[in-house]
Amino acid sequence: MSVHQVTVSAPVNIAVVKYWGKRDTALLLPTNSSLSLTLSQDDLRSTTTVRIDPKFEADRLWLNGKEEDVTSNKRMVNVVRELRALRKSLQDADSALPVIDSWRMHVCSENNFPTAAGLASSASGFAALTFGIAQALDIAERIPRAQLSRLARLGSGSACRSLFGGFVAWNMGSAADGNDSVAEQVADESHWADMEALILVASDARKDTPSTAGMQLTVETSALLQSRIKDVVPKRMEEMRAAIAAKDYDAFAELTMKDSNQFHAVCLDTFPPISYMNDVSRAVVHLITSYNALFTQPGAAGGPKKGYRAAYTFDAGPNAVLYVRREHVAEVLAIVNAVFPVPTTDREAYLGRAAQYVGKEDVAGVASLVKKIGMAPFAAGSLRRIISTSVGDGPRVLGWGAENSLLGENGLPKTTA
Amino acid sequence: MSVHQVTVSAPVNIAVVKYWGKRDTALLLPTNSSLSLTLSQDDLRSTTTVRIDPKFEADRLWLNGKEEDVTSNKRMVNVVRELRALRKSLQDADSALPVIDSWRMHVCSENNFPTAAGLASSASGFAALTFGIAQALDIAERIPRAQLSRLARLGSGSACRSLFGGFVAWNMGSAADGNDSVAEQVADESHWADMEALILVASDARKDTPSTAGMQLTVETSALLQSRIKDVVPKRMEEMRAAIAAKDYDAFAELTMKDSNQFHAVCLDTFPPISYMNDVSRAVVHLITSYNALFTQPGAAGGPKKGYRAAYTFDAGPNAVLYVRREHVAEVLAIVNAVFPVPTTDREAYLGRAAQYVGKEDVAGVASLVKKIGMAPFAAGSLRRIISTSVGDGPRVLGWGAENSLLGENGLPKTTA
Repeated sequence: MSVHQVTVSAPVNIAVVKYWGKRDTALLLPTNSSLSLTLSQDDLRSTTTVRIDPKFEADRLWLNGKEEDVTSNKRMVNVVRELRALRKSLQDADSALPVIDSWRMHVCSENNFPTAAGLASSASGFAALTFGIAQALDIAERIPRAQLSRLARLGSGSACRSLFGGFVAWNMGSAADGNDSVAEQVADESHWADMEALILVASDARKDTPSTAGMQLTVETSALLQSRIKDVVPKRMEEMRAAIAAKDYDAFAELTMKDSNQFHAVCLDTFPPISYMNDVSRAVVHLITSYNALFTQPGAAGGPKKGYRAAYTFDAGPNAVLYVRREHVAEVLAIVNAVFPVPTTDREAYLGRAAQYVGKEDVAGVASLVKKIGMAPFAAGSLRRIISTSVGDGPRVLGWGAENSLLGENGLPKTTA
Repeated sequence: MSVHQVTVSAPVNIAVVKYWGKRDTALLLPTNSSLSLTLSQDDLRSTTTVRIDPKFEADRLWLNGKEEDVTSNKRMVNVVRELRALRKSLQDADSALPVIDSWRMHVCSENNFPTAAGLASSASGFAALTFGIAQALDIAERIPRAQLSRLARLGSGSACRSLFGGFVAWNMGSAADGNDSVAEQVADESHWADMEALILVASDARKDTPSTAGMQLTVETSALLQSRIKDVVPKRMEEMRAAIAAKDYDAFAELTMKDSNQFHAVCLDTFPPISYMNDVSRAVVHLITSYNALFTQPGAAGGPKKGYRAAYTFDAGPNAVLYVRREHVAEVLAIVNAVFPVPTTDREAYLGRAAQYVGKEDVAGVASLVKKIGMAPFAAGSLRRIISTSVGDGPRVLGWGAENSLLGENGLPKTTA
């Protein structure tokens, strides 16, 4: 075979113990461990086709239909170089393996969610890239997945978590070369099968501080970050692992919300301060807090309250991700829709797959809850859309050769922007 | 003399190192020291008339024209009891002093700023109450001012700082009975005479978490508060005292903004989280940050940047207080007005005394700055009004007997709500 071509997809992940701050900005080594849930690629994914071909003259990269200067993207260069080096070491050890590490490659990648959705695409993007190149070089199944996770980390820190499905911990590690700073699967996607996610995409005209710059400003200027790193996260990681192992939603929900709050607290303690949450985000927090309060009772001494129905978490932007058990999704969605009315036009695009839950709720019960919560409805358009999804698997091979390929026979993208 | 009647006023104070959290909720002892600037009573004040009269049958209290149940207000009862005990101890020691500690009192208090202005009135209110009763009992000049500060603290923690003019530190103290938890004047109002304040009153429909409840929730649930208390505030207090002593505006401004940010950070790290700042507050932060960035240069290693023009601080609400040197007030106000347009109606009420600065700015210079800052103007009404004021003196006696009295000859309020 003189050409190796593969098309893969990789998932988005949303952390419940947040990554914010690097101790090494070249190797992308974090100041604390983190833990995320991998979201289903049926709903959100980066798709990447990689072709290596002895006839190609140079590496080329297209992202969302637009060619990028591959040499100026240092992180991309690092990932590709390391993958080729891995291939070479395998070739050197086994003369039966064809010598393909020197072949140039064409990489074409796209996200099925618009950047305007406000979802970070670097994690799924670099996971797909790393997984795709590793498959094209025929090394993905010859090395531990943790190795691929390490390489994806060199592209984008949180990408290392998107190499696994289910519940994924990124252990910060301690080695200077970062070899132990990799993700591991805490539980697979079937472990807690009724865990769903609702993403409330908030409208926001303000341009956010990019997370790469923002997190280092926090490392440099926040007086409180060190306390989070040393005093809070190590314990929280253990508690979150235990909550997931036990499928203890109350513990999971409370830890998730507290960690989101604290991430945004250290952003605010940065100088100049960074604010990712806006008034719509604050209203979602208030809504979920008030809703949960209708059901929760004090837990055992020191433990979380009992009876949580929804847990919010916010990444570096105003969008809320709600982790909700399937039995409560219809109710949570109905309550969200009561405060953030579904637009009468574009209803289908706004709700997407969430439409399946509309009409499934106890309408009288929801009306009573909404009345108790007592929030005035926001103007239509405060939310831009709702994405309903679940916990899903790790990267997938979608096909070899022409199957599902983003590249045409000529090795160029089938579609360009 | 068979009746003692006095009318006093007391000022508002706005902290630059924030008080948030009590270590003793009965004695109102704080978890950390704080430091504030006393604002001029020419602009913002609580006025209180106190009459003690052997013919009165009971203590009575009117706040802003409405009678309050004085016995149900524990903090008020505590302050009055302690002041009477002080009077009694002075009488016991000096038989020449008339015995008046048992006389009942009528107290009438009002603020010259509407509660709707979003300014905390408890500090100036309890300072005026304490100072007024102490004057009526003729003890105010017989005991150290620190003693009165301690008593005001029993009414409302931050009231202890309103017993002094200028720059005032509230030392947290360490005694179990709180006797050393009192305010002291760091510098009087003439020390840094060109320090002005602009209060940007933000519109906000949301009801804020009361600070009394909010701060204890932070003490109970914030994992980061302990780091603020132990690692940050002690050093910051020293740095702030030094900045004030040296009239070092750069250091003052940076410390002020950092401490405001951190106060709101620990609010957000509370569970459930507390958000006092809204999108208008965030925009003010962005505006001042961008404006300062046009002038600031890195300072000496570890020190603040040089060239700050304005410093923001936010209390437990969305209003911004900007501390600005007089030479820059017109420019700062013009830039604020560019982003938050002055309403065409009610212009006088909106600007108040700030109107004196309008037209004094370098119009072309401001236009150039606004262009560089690049923020789109907000809708009119995003700010409700602007209050221009300066650093001012401590409580004042406004008159004895009928002079300036809020009580009529019959001992009842002249005006009721």
